[in-house]
Amino acid sequence: MRSVSIIGGGLSKFGERWDKSFRDLVVEAGTAAVIDAGIEGREIQAIYGGCMSSGRLVGQEHVGALFADFLGLNPIPATRCEAACASGGVALRAGYLAVASGMYDVVAVGGVEKMTDFDSADVAIALGGAGDMEHELFFGATFPALYALMARRHMLEYGTTEEMMASCSVKNHKNAVHNPYAQYHNEITIEDVMNSGYIASPLKLLDCSPITDGAAAVILCASEKAKKFRKDPVEIIASSQASDTISLSNRHCMTELHATKVAAADAYRRANLKPSDIDVAEVHDCFSIAEIMAIEDLGFFDKGKGGPASLEGLTALNSEISINTSGGLKATGHPVGATGIKQAVEIMWQLQGKADKRQVKDAEIGMTHNVGGSGATAVVNIYKRL
Amino acid sequence: MRSVSIIGGGLSKFGERWDKSFRDLVVEAGTAAVIDAGIEGREIQAIYGGCMSSGRLVGQEHVGALFADFLGLNPIPATRCEAACASGGVALRAGYLAVASGMYDVVAVGGVEKMTDFDSADVAIALGGAGDMEHELFFGATFPALYALMARRHMLEYGTTEEMMASCSVKNHKNAVHNPYAQYHNEITIEDVMNSGYIASPLKLLDCSPITDGAAAVILCASEKAKKFRKDPVEIIASSQASDTISLSNRHCMTELHATKVAAADAYRRANLKPSDIDVAEVHDCFSIAEIMAIEDLGFFDKGKGGPASLEGLTALNSEISINTSGGLKATGHPVGATGIKQAVEIMWQLQGKADKRQVKDAEIGMTHNVGGSGATAVVNIYKRL
Repeated sequence: MRSVSIIGGGLSKFGERWDKSFRDLVVEAGTAAVIDAGIEGREIQAIYGGCMSSGRLVGQEHVGALFADFLGLNPIPATRCEAACASGGVALRAGYLAVASGMYDVVAVGGVEKMTDFDSADVAIALGGAGDMEHELFFGATFPALYALMARRHMLEYGTTEEMMASCSVKNHKNAVHNPYAQYHNEITIEDVMNSGYIASPLKLLDCSPITDGAAAVILCASEKAKKFRKDPVEIIASSQASDTISLSNRHCMTELHATKVAAADAYRRANLKPSDIDVAEVHDCFSIAEIMAIEDLGFFDKGKGGPASLEGLTALNSEISINTSGGLKATGHPVGATGIKQAVEIMWQLQGKADKRQVKDAEIGMTHNVGGSGATAVVNIYKRL
Repeated sequence: MRSVSIIGGGLSKFGERWDKSFRDLVVEAGTAAVIDAGIEGREIQAIYGGCMSSGRLVGQEHVGALFADFLGLNPIPATRCEAACASGGVALRAGYLAVASGMYDVVAVGGVEKMTDFDSADVAIALGGAGDMEHELFFGATFPALYALMARRHMLEYGTTEEMMASCSVKNHKNAVHNPYAQYHNEITIEDVMNSGYIASPLKLLDCSPITDGAAAVILCASEKAKKFRKDPVEIIASSQASDTISLSNRHCMTELHATKVAAADAYRRANLKPSDIDVAEVHDCFSIAEIMAIEDLGFFDKGKGGPASLEGLTALNSEISINTSGGLKATGHPVGATGIKQAVEIMWQLQGKADKRQVKDAEIGMTHNVGGSGATAVVNIYKRL
C-alpha cells in the first residue's frame, strides 16, 4: 500500500444556508479545496462523496455523479459512500484506499448535507434511519433518545454529571468563536446549557449538535507525489474503521462505543503511536455525552474520567489534549455527510499551523474520529506533516 | 495493485418478496455467497454494500453496518456505496480497490433493494432521484420518460424500430426461463411486447425492467490467495468506471451513453482485449433501448446496428455474443442495488461452467456493464478464470 497525503482542503460556510442549494454547497467546498491544493480540475482522477440523507430530504440520490457534474469533472469515476453521520469518514477512507491501491494518484473527497430547508420532524425521521429503523425509530427512539440512554448509564456507572457534559458544549462554543466557517460564534456558559431545556433527559438543547447545511472537501494524493503540489502536505498515517450492532439494544455495553475502540486500536497499531502522542483531535460530539465517551474510548482518559477531565478543562485549547478546536459538531454544526471531511480539514490546518486563534501550539500529530448512528460505524484517522 | 478474484457468489430469489424484509434478503444472498466460497465469516475483513433507495423507501440508511450486523460480521468495516442503479457496480469496485490496495485479502460485497412493498408512485419518485431531481424529476421526467427520449432519437437517427427493441425483451425472457433466481419464467413474443401498452412512447410495459426485491453478494479475494479457497476462482481483469452529466439535457448526444464508452475503453485497455474477445456479457437493460445502446457503446456492434443485430438474434444465447444470459434486468428483475452484483455472479457461473441450460459454450471472457440513472455512472468489468 502506498502512503496517502492531503494536499488541499476547503469548507463551505456551515449554518442555515437557505441561499444555497445542495449542489451549490458542493461547489463552494470543492472549489475551495481545489484552489487550496493549487491543482487543475483535470488532474483529479476520481471522486468519493459522503452524504447520508439526500434521498429522503432533497429527493436526490446518485450524488457522486452530481458532484462530478457540477464541479465540471466528468467523465472521471464518482462514487457516493454512506454510513450515516460517518458518511464523510467512510468516503475519505474509500478515497484513501483508492490512492493507496495505486489506481489513482489524485482523488477528491467531498461531503455534504442539506438539512435546514425541511420540517424538523422529517429531519428527525431521516436521521433516525442511522439507527435500526425497524427496532428503534419505529418505536419512537430518535437519536437524542438513544444518546440519552447512554448518558443515563454513564451517569449511573461513573458519576458523570450534567454539568460535566455541559462543559463540553461550553468549550466547543468557545473554540468556534475563532472558526469563520462555524455555525455559531457565541460563547455559552454551563448555566446556559443547564437552563436550555430537556430534549431527552438528561440531554438538553445545548448538549445537542444542531441541524446544519454545509459541505467539506479534501484532495488526496499519493505521498510520493504530494510535494509536487505543495510544500506542506499532511500525511494520513493510519485510516481505520470498525462496525458494531446497529441497534443499541444489542450492545454488550452502553457506556462505550465499541467500534471506536476497535478502530482506534487498529489506527494506533498502524501508526505505531499511543494516545498520549496525539496533540489535537476532532472527535464526534453529536451530543455532549458522545464527546465524553469518545475521549475515553480513544484512550485519552480512563473510562469514567472523561466527564471530570472535561469539566476541569483538560480538553480545552492548548491544555492536556486539544479536543474539537474547530468547535466540534456542537458549534461548527453537523451537516451529516460533511462532518467527517470537515474534521480532516481542521486537522490539516492545525498541522500546517494555519488555525489562527484556535491554533494548537507545536501540533505534530492529529486525529479525527467520526461516528455513524449510535456507534454502528466509527472511523479513526491519524495524521502528521509529510 | 494486486490482482483480485471472485471466490464465491450468491443471490436471493428475485421477485415480489413480501415474505422477506430488507435485512432478510441481505442475509439470504450473503449466506449463499459465504457458503459458495467455502469460507468462515471470520475470514471476511471488510464489507461493501450497494443500495440506492433504502432511505427513501424503507427508512433505513447506514446499511453497510446493517449488513455487518445481520450477517454476524461485526466489528469489521462496512461501507455502503451508492450510484443509483449502478450502486452494486460501484460497491463491487470499491471492494475491488480495497483488496487491490493490499489493505484486505478477503472482502464481501453485497447489494440489495426492497421495492415492492411500496406505492408505485413513491417508487417512481425514489428512482427519479437517480437523475437530476431539480432539473428533471421535478418537472415530471421519470425514468421511462428519459429513456423514451433516447429511444425516439435512436429511431430517428438510425431507423431503429419498436420491434427491434421488443426483441431484446423477448430474448431476455427466453434466457430467464432457465434462471431459477429470476423474477419471470414466462416466454414472451414480439407481439406481446407490441401489445403491452405504452408507458412512455415508444417504450411499452414489456420494454421496461420491473420493480423487484432482491439481493446479491460476492466474496472477493486477492488472486494470489484465491486458490486456497476454491479451484475455480474468477479473476476481475479490469474494473473501470466513468461519469457523465446527471441531466440528459446537458449531454452532447442522446443515442449513446458516453460514460459507458469511456469505462469500456478503459476496461479494454487494462485487460488488453477488444470487444470481439468477449464471449458473454451482462449489460444494463433497464429498458430495451438501453440494451441496444449498450451493445453498441461496448463495441459489440457499430452505432445504429444494435437494433437490427438484436432482431436478427445475434445477441441470443450461443450466437455471435451472448447478452444477458441471466435474463437481464428485464426478466431477472432489477432490485436496483443488487443488479451490479447479480451481473458479476452470473458471469462467475458462466466462466465456471455452472450456468446449466443457459450456459455459453466455451465461455472464456465475460463482461458486466452496470449503469446508474440515465447514464451518469457506468461501471464496466472484465473477467476470466484465474
